[in-house]
Amino acid sequence: MPQPESRTPQRSGAERKPRDERRAEVLEAATQIFYEKGYEASALRDIADRVGMLKGSLYYYFQSKEDLLFQVISAVHREGLAVIRERAALPGDPLQRLENVIAGHVEHTCRNLVATAVFLHELSALPTERRQEILGTEHAYQGVFRGLIDQAQGEGLARADLDPRLAALSVLGSTNWVYRWYRPGGEFTPEQIGAQLAELAIRGVATPTALAARFP
Amino acid sequence: MPQPESRTPQRSGAERKPRDERRAEVLEAATQIFYEKGYEASALRDIADRVGMLKGSLYYYFQSKEDLLFQVISAVHREGLAVIRERAALPGDPLQRLENVIAGHVEHTCRNLVATAVFLHELSALPTERRQEILGTEHAYQGVFRGLIDQAQGEGLARADLDPRLAALSVLGSTNWVYRWYRPGGEFTPEQIGAQLAELAIRGVATPTALAARFP
Repeated sequence: MPQPESRTPQRSGAERKPRDERRAEVLEAATQIFYEKGYEASALRDIADRVGMLKGSLYYYFQSKEDLLFQVISAVHREGLAVIRERAALPGDPLQRLENVIAGHVEHTCRNLVATAVFLHELSALPTERRQEILGTEHAYQGVFRGLIDQAQGEGLARADLDPRLAALSVLGSTNWVYRWYRPGGEFTPEQIGAQLAELAIRGVATPTALAARFP
Repeated sequence: MPQPESRTPQRSGAERKPRDERRAEVLEAATQIFYEKGYEASALRDIADRVGMLKGSLYYYFQSKEDLLFQVISAVHREGLAVIRERAALPGDPLQRLENVIAGHVEHTCRNLVATAVFLHELSALPTERRQEILGTEHAYQGVFRGLIDQAQGEGLARADLDPRLAALSVLGSTNWVYRWYRPGGEFTPEQIGAQLAELAIRGVATPTALAARFP
């Protein structure tokens, strides 16, 4: 059934909600619309309609459609980075922490599929400056994985012949890819998927001795 | 410098080229334009201009913009599938063949970055029927990896506690991801990247005995 061209915004009580709450609603609607239509084909009107606002009211929260995309992308990325940094800082040897970081990243991705898809597909729609702002963070992301692999090599737990950057990119690929195939309510929980992908990665990078200790 | 709004098509000699050659040129230009602008924002006029054709002449080769996208996506997918099926059929035990398939897939992706990006980002722009046609192939793709892991388990070469589907998706993620970070002329060749990602994957899935035999 085609969507009506224009819809009367449902504004009842809308303005009485706190500003932060309304802003979060707009962000969530924008994430969903960008995901469904793609950034280029999405109109601010679609987003306003989804949250029952007038299009002009969006400017109270965001400067432009581009600003909205930037906020969507940086929010999911910032949260994901916080998850893995927190796990990377927990006690344990570098391999244990890497395993924990991978599992956390997978769980976060499974629980933020739509925002992750928008991030991964629409980053290129941002102008260079804002893209760089995020790309800095992306490297920070990659840096957590790479740093732990570096440390594991330093402690003789990861293979010395491994290139830490390639290994980090391999792990990021294996785990980010989850956004393309995971569906809530499927055969495996996010925790089960996280544990399996983490084990595959740890087996890939560990020395035989470290491996025998971790998976006897 | 902004592009001129309309450009005089450079048609000199164009019509004298064989039909197949012109068709391939249109496909290549479409791949590039879809990559640069996104499918939604791309116009047939952009593609016609790029190959020095009149827009109307495109219909001699393709029915519509959607048909062009379908041809771009199915071509890169069909070729990639041919590469991995060929390698999967070579002599060797299932782990050796899996290693070879992974390396081949990475090399193919590195050499077809733009078309792979269009495939991965724009598949959802196709109508359900044509998407299903490709998705069938995507599962065929995944099936090659999964089938080899299944066989390796059957022969006691891959860990029995591994879920073959999750393992196949992990390998596909690690290897597909290359399209996001590989740049020609960088630190590593496609062959080096293929070999490293293959080793990481094989170590992830192999039994300790198979691993000791493969990487003594």
